[in-house]
This record gives sequence, C-alpha cells and structure tokens, in this order.
Amino acid sequence: MAAIKVEIRSGVYYDSAVLMQLQRSLASLPGIEDAGVVMGTESNKELLAHIDLTTPEVEKAQPNDLVIVVRGVDEKAATEALGKVDELLTRKKGGAEQAYRPRSIEGANDMLPEASWVLVSVAGRYAAGVAREAMRLGKHVFLFSDNVSVEEEIALKQEAAEKGLLVMGPDCGTALIGGYGLGFANKVRRGNIGVVAAAGTGLQHVTSRIHQLGGGITHGIGTGGRDLSEKVGAVTFRQGIELLSRDPETKVIVLVSKPPSPKVAEEVLKLARKAGKPVVVNFIARPLSLPQMDNLYFARGLDHAAELAVELSRNLPALETDVDLGLERFAAGQKYLRGLFSGGTLAYEAQHILASYLPKVYANAPINKELKLPNSYVSQEHCIVDLGEDEFTQGRLHPMMDNELRIRRLMEEAADPSVAIILLDVVIGYGSHPDPASELGPAVARAKALAKEAGRYLEVIAVVCGTDEDPQKLDAQVQQMKDGGAWVSTSNEEAMRYAGRLARALSQEAGGEFTMKPVDLSTLQRPLAAINVGLESFAENLAAQGAPVIHVDWRPPAGGNERLMAILERMKQR
Amino acid sequence: MAAIKVEIRSGVYYDSAVLMQLQRSLASLPGIEDAGVVMGTESNKELLAHIDLTTPEVEKAQPNDLVIVVRGVDEKAATEALGKVDELLTRKKGGAEQAYRPRSIEGANDMLPEASWVLVSVAGRYAAGVAREAMRLGKHVFLFSDNVSVEEEIALKQEAAEKGLLVMGPDCGTALIGGYGLGFANKVRRGNIGVVAAAGTGLQHVTSRIHQLGGGITHGIGTGGRDLSEKVGAVTFRQGIELLSRDPETKVIVLVSKPPSPKVAEEVLKLARKAGKPVVVNFIARPLSLPQMDNLYFARGLDHAAELAVELSRNLPALETDVDLGLERFAAGQKYLRGLFSGGTLAYEAQHILASYLPKVYANAPINKELKLPNSYVSQEHCIVDLGEDEFTQGRLHPMMDNELRIRRLMEEAADPSVAIILLDVVIGYGSHPDPASELGPAVARAKALAKEAGRYLEVIAVVCGTDEDPQKLDAQVQQMKDGGAWVSTSNEEAMRYAGRLARALSQEAGGEFTMKPVDLSTLQRPLAAINVGLESFAENLAAQGAPVIHVDWRPPAGGNERLMAILERMKQR
Repeated sequence: MAAIKVEIRSGVYYDSAVLMQLQRSLASLPGIEDAGVVMGTESNKELLAHIDLTTPEVEKAQPNDLVIVVRGVDEKAATEALGKVDELLTRKKGGAEQAYRPRSIEGANDMLPEASWVLVSVAGRYAAGVAREAMRLGKHVFLFSDNVSVEEEIALKQEAAEKGLLVMGPDCGTALIGGYGLGFANKVRRGNIGVVAAAGTGLQHVTSRIHQLGGGITHGIGTGGRDLSEKVGAVTFRQGIELLSRDPETKVIVLVSKPPSPKVAEEVLKLARKAGKPVVVNFIARPLSLPQMDNLYFARGLDHAAELAVELSRNLPALETDVDLGLERFAAGQKYLRGLFSGGTLAYEAQHILASYLPKVYANAPINKELKLPNSYVSQEHCIVDLGEDEFTQGRLHPMMDNELRIRRLMEEAADPSVAIILLDVVIGYGSHPDPASELGPAVARAKALAKEAGRYLEVIAVVCGTDEDPQKLDAQVQQMKDGGAWVSTSNEEAMRYAGRLARALSQEAGGEFTMKPVDLSTLQRPLAAINVGLESFAENLAAQGAPVIHVDWRPPAGGNERLMAILERMKQR
Repeated sequence: MAAIKVEIRSGVYYDSAVLMQLQRSLASLPGIEDAGVVMGTESNKELLAHIDLTTPEVEKAQPNDLVIVVRGVDEKAATEALGKVDELLTRKKGGAEQAYRPRSIEGANDMLPEASWVLVSVAGRYAAGVAREAMRLGKHVFLFSDNVSVEEEIALKQEAAEKGLLVMGPDCGTALIGGYGLGFANKVRRGNIGVVAAAGTGLQHVTSRIHQLGGGITHGIGTGGRDLSEKVGAVTFRQGIELLSRDPETKVIVLVSKPPSPKVAEEVLKLARKAGKPVVVNFIARPLSLPQMDNLYFARGLDHAAELAVELSRNLPALETDVDLGLERFAAGQKYLRGLFSGGTLAYEAQHILASYLPKVYANAPINKELKLPNSYVSQEHCIVDLGEDEFTQGRLHPMMDNELRIRRLMEEAADPSVAIILLDVVIGYGSHPDPASELGPAVARAKALAKEAGRYLEVIAVVCGTDEDPQKLDAQVQQMKDGGAWVSTSNEEAMRYAGRLARALSQEAGGEFTMKPVDLSTLQRPLAAINVGLESFAENLAAQGAPVIHVDWRPPAGGNERLMAILERMKQR
C-alpha cells in the first residue's frame, strides 16, 4: 500500500534549483511514485495537496520550513528515500565553479569593481535587502526575485531614482544590456532598436521576433510587470525611455507593457513623445484608435511591434514635430478648438480622433456622456457641435441645406479670443445646398478677418465630402473654401489629426517631464560585468556570454531569522 | 432705435424649405437687421433668444405655432416687413412642377404603381403616420424626418420586419439604391461594394471616398443613427446585411455605425460573419484589437474603411472558414481551451486576442478582473493559467526552468473530457531549461495519446519564442514540439488566432441568426421609382437622376390637429 513520508527542516536555505534537483532525484528512486520538495508556503501546501502529497504534518509547515515529502509504493520505499536526502543534497553541490566565492556583494565588488550590475534572484523576502546593498555600492539592480511586495518595490525604485540607478524588477525576468542577456534572455543580434518592457516574455518575444526579422537590439530594459501600475508610477519605465532617447546607438524605441494603468500609460506616452525618435508602443489591451501619432507607432501585439520596429529601423521616418505648425501666428490665450459640423458621423469621428490628442473635447452629441456640452448654443473649451442634431432642426432646414445657423455660430466663435481653431465640414451631393462653399468660403474669410483685426490668427480647417460628379463639384467646393483661407482636406482623418496636433500644441499641457536623476549612459555602454546573487545558473549564463561575473555564495542574513535581519539592516544603514 | 415685431400663426403648415426662404427674404428687406421664421418649439425659442430675436409673445408660442419675428432698424421697417409675409409666401410657391399633384400616397401610387419606395421628410410628429401608410401599400420607406421618438421607431421597424420591408430611418439622411441617391447623397460610380450605415454622413463619406479611389457602389442602405442602440436592436441593419449577402452584384460589404451599443454591435457582427463575403467594419469608437477576423476587416475610420473596401473589391480574398478546422476529429462534449503558459506577457496577449473570439476566457492573472479564475489549480471552461505567477513560484523554480508542474497540469487537462485545445508556450534562451521541448514534446505526445485512448482528439497549440542563436536552437525546439504532435508557431498572434477560431467553432455559440421575413431583393434591383412626401427638393433630385417620382402635395391630416389625427389613424387601420 502506498505510503507518504514527510521530513520538515527548519532554518535551512537552498536555492530553488537545488530543491528541484532533489525533488527529481527523490522521484526517480526505486519504489517512489512522487515527491515534493518545497518551502512551506500556503500556496506550495495547496499544490502538494492537489497532487496527493499532503499529511497533517505538511499542513502545519511554516513558510521558512523546507518540506520534503515522498509517496512510495510502500512504507519501506518511502522511508528509504527520505534517508537519502542528505546524500542527494551533497551530490548536487558543485557545478561551474569559480576559484573563490565571496559571501557578500561587498566581497564580490572587491574582486570585480568594474561590475555595474547586480543580479538578484534570492527568495522574495530577502530580495529587497540584497537590492539595497547593491545600490549602496552604486550598482544597477536586475531584480529577478518575485514575491516582493509593491511597497518594497516603490521604496527601492524611489531610492534608485534619487541615485540615478536602475532597479529592474522585482519579478523582472529578462534584460539585454549591450548585447548581454540577463536572467531569461535570448541571444539576439546587436542593432539599433532599444526596448523598454514591463513584460518579461514581452521583451523576450519582441526581441526574438526582431532578430528573426533580421533586426537587432541595443538595450532591452526590463522593469518588472508592475512598473506601470498606478502605485509604482512607471519609475523604471521612464528612466528607460529617457536613457534610450539619449543613447546615440538607439534609433528606434519599442515600449511593451502588460495591461498598464490607463492613467500611467498616458503619462508615459507624453514622455515618449519627447524622445525625438520613432517609438513603437504595445501596451496590451490598451484600446487603439490611431495607428500613428507624432513619433508614436501603435502596434496591435508583440509580433506586430517587432515588425513595425524593424521596418522603422530600416527606413527612419521624418518625424512630425510641432515646429511646422506655425504656432507663432496665434496670440496668447488662443488655445481652443471649436467644431461646427453638419454631418453627425463626421462629428463623432472627429471626437474619436481628437480624443487621442486632447484630454477633453465636449460635444452636444458626445461619444462619452461625461463630456456632454451643457448648452449646445454656448461653446466651452474644446468642443464639437453637430448642428444637424434634432435640437437644431425642429421646423428648420438641415445645416447641409441651409448654412445660416452655422455661419452665425462661426462668427461668434471667431469673436472669442480663446478660440484658435474652427472645424467645418462641407457635405455636398444631391439634397445638399446647391453651392455651400459659395457661402461658407466667404464666411471663413470674414471670420479670419475679424480675428485678424483683433490681433489674432484663426485657423479654419474644413473637410469636404463629395465627388467630382456631384452637382456642386468637389474641386470647386474645395477651391472656394481655400479661397476663403481655410485649410482643406477631403479626408476627415487627416483634417482631424491636423486639428488635434495644433490644438494640443496650443494647449501646452503639462506632463511628460523627466525629473529623476539621469542614469549614467556609460554604465550601459561599457562591456557588461556583473555580480550574481541567487540562482547560480544566471552567473553561468553570463560567463557563457563572455561577461566577467562573480557569483556570491549567499546565505540569508542571520540564518533567515527575520528579527535579526531587521536589526542587521538598521545597523548597515548607519 | 431697433424694434422687434412678431407674428404668430397657429394651425398652419409649411415645409422647412419654405420657412427658410421666407426668413431669408425678410432678412434682406430694407431696414431689417435680422429675421427668424421657425416653429415654436422650446429649442427654436432658445435659438431666437440666443440671437436677440425674442419677445414675451415669442416665449409663449407653442410647438405647432409658426413664429415670424423680425428686428428692424426702427418700428416702421419692422412693421412693414411683417406686412409682406403673405406676399413673400405666395411668391415662393412654385418650383419644378408636375402636371398633377396627388394629395395622398394612395393617389401617388395610382399614378406610379411601380414605385417601391416612399421618401418621407415631413415634420417629425407626422412622420410615423406617413411611413405606416407607405407600408400599408407594400413600399419601402426612406424616413428622413427626425424628431421621431424611439418608441415610434421600434414600432415601425417591427412592422417592416414582419412585412419584409425596409424602414430606413428615422433621421436617415441618405441612401443609395441601385445607383440612385435618396435624400442627401453623392453621385458615385456603380460598382461591387455594398454599404449598410447607421450613420448618414458616414455613408456619404465612405461612398464618396470609394468613388474618389476609383471604386463603386451597389447599394447603400441607411438605417438611421439609432438603429444599433440596444432599444432598436439593429433591425434595419440586419436586414441590410442579409440583403447584401444575397445580392450577387455585391462582392464586398461595408458596415458603418455611429457609436453602437457594444452588445448590439457584437450581435450584428455574428450575422456579418455569415455573409460569405468580405465585410469591412467601422463602428466608431468600438475598440479594435485584431485588424481582421474571419471575413471581417476592421477599419480605424471612415477613410480607412473606404480604402480597405476598394482594395478588397479589387483582390477578393479567400475567406477563412470553419471547414478547414477539422471539427469532425473532436468528440461530442469537447469544447474548452486551456492555456498553460510560462510567460506572463504571452498569457496576457493570449487573453487579449482570444477575447475577440470567445465571450469568456478565465485566467489566474486576468486582464478583466471579473474573469479571475477562482482557483488557479482548477481549470474551468475556457481558461489561461500563467504558471509563472508568484503563486506558483514561491520556493520553486520558474516554469521556464522546470517543466514538471506544467506537464502534470497538461496531463490533467488532457484527461478532462470537456477539453479540446491546450495552449503551451516554449520560451528558450539563456536562463531557460537547457532543452525544454525534449520534455514538453513527449509530454504532448502522451497527452494526445491519453485523449485518443478515451475516444477524443486533443489539439495542442504551442508557441515557441526564441532565436536560432539561443543555446537550445529555435528550430530544434520547434521540431521536437511538432514531433510530439503539437501545432506550432513562432507567432503568438497566429497561434492564438488559430486557437480562438477552433474554440469558437467547437463552442457553437448561438447568435447571428436572421429571423425576419427576407426583403425582396428584386425591389432593389429594378430601376428606382419613388413617391416623395415632404421636402420637394428630394423629388427634384430623383427626377434629376432620371428616376420616375411623384411628389405628394401633402398637408398634415386634420389640419395638424393631433386628436383628430389619432381618430383618422384608427379608422384607416380597420
């Protein structure tokens, strides 16, 4: 009859790789059906229960206890297996050895002072302490450990921001620094694309795809998956963007994140707009509207982000900047955009496109009910009025047939010193006014003249909808609007994008400032050297890539006793 | 001193074009600064107040009252202007005349029995009655009138659905039937693209752009902007899709809507999936994820929708169908998909992509918190488990290093008779297991064998992430997974799309059925003939396009007396 035998060891520490090896060795012993070797956390105990490896003794184990449990075909087999634990643990020691193993980061630093990086992959409860020690020595931290609280993360990143250091993580699976992979990382070509990722396999997948497509990477900065949460506020992500924007080798930047806080995502994008380089953005599950905006290129997924980045890196685009907008033409105080539409759908689409540029655009027929214009006859801030809505057409002609109401409103808006931009649509075809631009064009000229007399500049943007076969003729309508001084397009998207860029530039919204101490770029540019604390395989991997690395023979301080650890920590901070 | 003079006329009816002409004539009289001629609705009175044309008398006017108000430079000018109202009204009568003007739709029908269409543009409160009269005669209705209640709209569309008739509108600005424009419509080339639009200028803009790009239109079915609201439930929109899917001339369908009810939009798309033709979708402000799914192509805007449609109409694509999915391999009851991921970002992206195919995909690390898997160790329905989450890695190795936990779970899922599809990721590179597919590949083979023994088929879909330079070699990993029987891709998007299509086909979700009486296609195919009630210019426009049309010399029933109208309506229904 099958028998389960358990051994609990308290106050010992082995890294997870050693535990896995022990578990496998036990499970492969004769007469053993299954084995589990884990720390006694709630989650691990649940797992053991799930695979029929639990006993009352296991249930009582504490998170600091090492739980060794075997199920044998009979009592004898199980007991014999447990008897071999120490032998198996000893046998598993060894591996790629370095001549001398320091017991502390300080010791390692004495051996390899050029190391700019410390890789930390110890158990979560010890990780913050190790990371702080690294920062005290002025090192960037690659913090692989998970099960680190968000409060610890905030504190660590705060300290890093003040010191101009990077804390990648916690739970940062991967990074690529100057061609060297840290943690889980693929061997990818060096190139001209830099990546910042709050997404471990996101970084791996995008960089692998870039390599598969023939492109290459400068640096891949991991931040940990929580970096774009509201609490953490994208500290490392911003550092990464700012760093890559300064790096002359990086021509294109890719940003990847697990589902971010929408607010933080928008703030991060404001900084990204200032990068002065094309930036490909893939924030998972963030709704897309425009595929491209200024220097930002929005990808629909990881594969697409890689494709876009490689394409852009090969054909660097001329970037849209605010310089060509002629902002100097406008007077101080002119900042608002007012849309006076006759077509409801065009008015909706205008709102939808402008939402990518401006935080709030009011409307009488709003997409977002919170942005309902309180009074359709009175404009406020940025707003879009659809004059074809029922409220304007009871017992009167539709504004496509009768321009009067729209022209009245146009002149009112032109007289408002806070208005900079007016949007009009001109919809021709059967049913419409026989020659709308013959009235709207001169009205635009009058509106612009009125503003000019008052020392202002008014930009009137018109979208003309129709065909060359319409009775009013598309070209003739476009020409008359141009003659009136309007900026004209037959594409609603093009017109609204121009309007959005202009209004945003005039509004001069705050945000996107980088206020942390800049990270020293040369620490990423010189050949990587590192100190490794935790999973030994991470040191082996760096060595295999030709990077100097010192592995620390780390043990939990005070034998894992948390009270003693806290005292030690306080002593060090003095 | 400026003086305002007012005249109120009760129980009279003029169409809006006549009122506009009167207003303009009054405003252009000598000594007149401004004039207003409107029905006395609240909204119109507000407008008059806004442009300084109000008096206490105006404020007391009722919605059925015609309000004529002028502001003259002095009392004399204003009084003289009002004295000319009747003369001006008489002078404006006339226009393009037909020999005899019937006073009713019945009379018009006697003159033009081949008319399949009635255009209705009378004031909103009379519109439903006129539309019902048209349907009694078996006519489709183009209902331009706005200010019709949603309850009236529902009742009219219900009746139309039962009779196999179309009610386009209310507030339907435009339609194109067999090359003829109704209401506001552009002159566009005939071609092979059909459009259904709950968006007046949306239809105009898309069809104009299609024309500008060299493409052409079969029919453009307008539905009114509220058709995709939850209350109306897309009655006309569905009729339009079903009709165009049967029309042999239509090779590509374009769907456009003002911001729709999300629920109704998804239902409509289910019907569109069955069209058997490429369908371009532009529902304003509906979040986009995939650019293409089955026969659906999602556009980001009106201009883009036109571009896509023209491109597709020139190079008709082979459509993805469920036929090639090999559904017959699966046993009854197999329908669920289970994802077992080691990469968190890949797991998030999987959820994001699958959400386009499946209504509910649970996850231990869900994008949408409502879809949190109650117990990460126990799968339910469709679900994605990220085994790299903290809960699984306390004191144990990450699943990229240690496959054991994942293989256990794989075998559990394979044993579940409701499971049809298992998703795995294989992430290689430094740090990862030295040869993960050497364990995962054979495990896939065992899982598939286990299902086969139980008379089932198990599809295992694997996405492999890495490069040819990784220590584990990408190709070798792919090959080992294939040898185990997995369907393998290096693109997460491609793998998840295949998984989504397969799971959706196996789930056989309800929805997308068309249960109304089909509209007789021949009524759209034969040359258009119509009866017009309301704005005379709409009849003129049809005549200009060469369509036979009878304009009805319509007056409100019972002189606009609503009580009498209701009695008349009841009498007709007998």
